Amino acid sequence: MAAYDDQNVFAKILRGEIPCSRIYEDDQTLAFMDIMPRGDGHCLVIPKAPSRNLLDIDPQDLAAVIGTVQKVARAAMEAMRADGVMIQQFSEPASGQVVYHTHFHILPRFEGVELKPPGQMGDMDEIARHGDRIRAALEG
Amino acid sequence: MAAYDDQNVFAKILRGEIPCSRIYEDDQTLAFMDIMPRGDGHCLVIPKAPSRNLLDIDPQDLAAVIGTVQKVARAAMEAMRADGVMIQQFSEPASGQVVYHTHFHILPRFEGVELKPPGQMGDMDEIARHGDRIRAALEG
Repeated sequence: MAAYDDQNVFAKILRGEIPCSRIYEDDQTLAFMDIMPRGDGHCLVIPKAPSRNLLDIDPQDLAAVIGTVQKVARAAMEAMRADGVMIQQFSEPASGQVVYHTHFHILPRFEGVELKPPGQMGDMDEIARHGDRIRAALEG
Repeated sequence: MAAYDDQNVFAKILRGEIPCSRIYEDDQTLAFMDIMPRGDGHCLVIPKAPSRNLLDIDPQDLAAVIGTVQKVARAAMEAMRADGVMIQQFSEPASGQVVYHTHFHILPRFEGVELKPPGQMGDMDEIARHGDRIRAALEG
């Protein structure tokens, strides 16, 4: 497996070099909206510590990340009035991983609504509004 | 959300009422082969304690489950000589959840090989052989 490269886009978000629609943060994790949403409310949770994916992440960081995934998934269900929620995590290119900093996808699901194909930029205003709703549900 | 129903198939596996191709077990978690594999080495990790899905699982059970997911995913990568690995977890019918006991899917991925559609029974002998390989990698 390749070494961690700190020039990946999530490392830049963590360093504040590029912006994100932030919805939750604690000492070990950060949650923010995916800018290529496969559906309304699609967001991501990452560890603050560097790791490439599930295969090399420190188990304590992983436990922190999944705790945040649960919190944010519940809030996203409520905020988006979703019917279900799907979690995905990809490790290495053959799995579909594109950014090489560990991340978990949280995808609110709605009855009768298929996911959009990956890799398409979303409407940034709409993404920000969905982020506001999820953040409000977390804080409420 | 509906209440936990202890007649689901994974609860029956935990009680020993129906068999499984077991690959790993500790106090809090069990890992076994999926009998409807979407690819070679497709396996599942479940908590021993009852919960319906990510939305109601106790955070300590969830942390234990993701720890086992990491262990088994690494072993499955090695045992199956996979190029990557995908983790999926579904909560509620709109997300694709079919069995209502919390479970994480571990899907080894191979360059150029698509996943099979869900819901198709696999070859039980082949599934058992893949389970043997993953168990050996965990123990080795």
